[in-house]
Amino acid sequence: MSTTDPIFETDFMREMLRQVRALDSYGVHDGKSVEQLLAPFVLSKEARSAIPILGDPDPVTLSRVRAFYNAIAVLIEKECGQMAVPLVHLSHEGFGRVIITVGKLLVLDRALRDAHRFGFESFSKMKTEADKQLSVALELAGRFPEVAGF
Amino acid sequence: MSTTDPIFETDFMREMLRQVRALDSYGVHDGKSVEQLLAPFVLSKEARSAIPILGDPDPVTLSRVRAFYNAIAVLIEKECGQMAVPLVHLSHEGFGRVIITVGKLLVLDRALRDAHRFGFESFSKMKTEADKQLSVALELAGRFPEVAGF
Repeated sequence: MSTTDPIFETDFMREMLRQVRALDSYGVHDGKSVEQLLAPFVLSKEARSAIPILGDPDPVTLSRVRAFYNAIAVLIEKECGQMAVPLVHLSHEGFGRVIITVGKLLVLDRALRDAHRFGFESFSKMKTEADKQLSVALELAGRFPEVAGF
Repeated sequence: MSTTDPIFETDFMREMLRQVRALDSYGVHDGKSVEQLLAPFVLSKEARSAIPILGDPDPVTLSRVRAFYNAIAVLIEKECGQMAVPLVHLSHEGFGRVIITVGKLLVLDRALRDAHRFGFESFSKMKTEADKQLSVALELAGRFPEVAGF
């Protein structure tokens, strides 16, 4: 790995890499650089709008949605020391709901729309989004420790 | 309806009936008695074990799982005056997770196993189970009103 961008040294991006590697059961992507492995998460506006939103999103796209929220759940768990359980629920045609629970507390609850087009404009935007969601979740867990530890 | 069993006059069974009727978009079951409409929820031990647990449960069985938890969510909502959102998530082969959230509070969180065989030994057992889950959920909502109202 000859990566120089310091963003790949952050906890979140390291965890994203772990999540993506975990999906690669057959080692198809062995030898690829961090950028190459995480590249599918970056979509320009043009690339996004070129993706049709017909039917259900394909399993590979879904596995990326899961990787993103799994990574956030892992960081929540690390930070607050309690199990964080993610659940990505797609109802139909790319609509759905993502939740992360800690004890009896819903630390993250988001509606999914157009999951077919899941992606971020840049690695930096992806990290910013994850950081934002992480801090809201940790703030909630800190505010209601009794519920989070239930 | 010439029903005499007083169980059908309870809030829960009335709500179950409403849920089942809501699924019947084409009026196929119009004219059926309450017992007939709710009959598929009752499975003897023998009938249960005769159902194979291969592959994913069929959509009709799933709609019954949803009807049961929707009914519980409606009663939670009635009782505590706040929106209760059910989510039935099947991961694979009849395994899954059912949650009901009120605000940021997880008032119900259950693992689903062998959803293919979803059913109860009798109407009375079904109602007892629902009452139990309802009272646990309401107890939680009452204990953490700030989180439920978040």
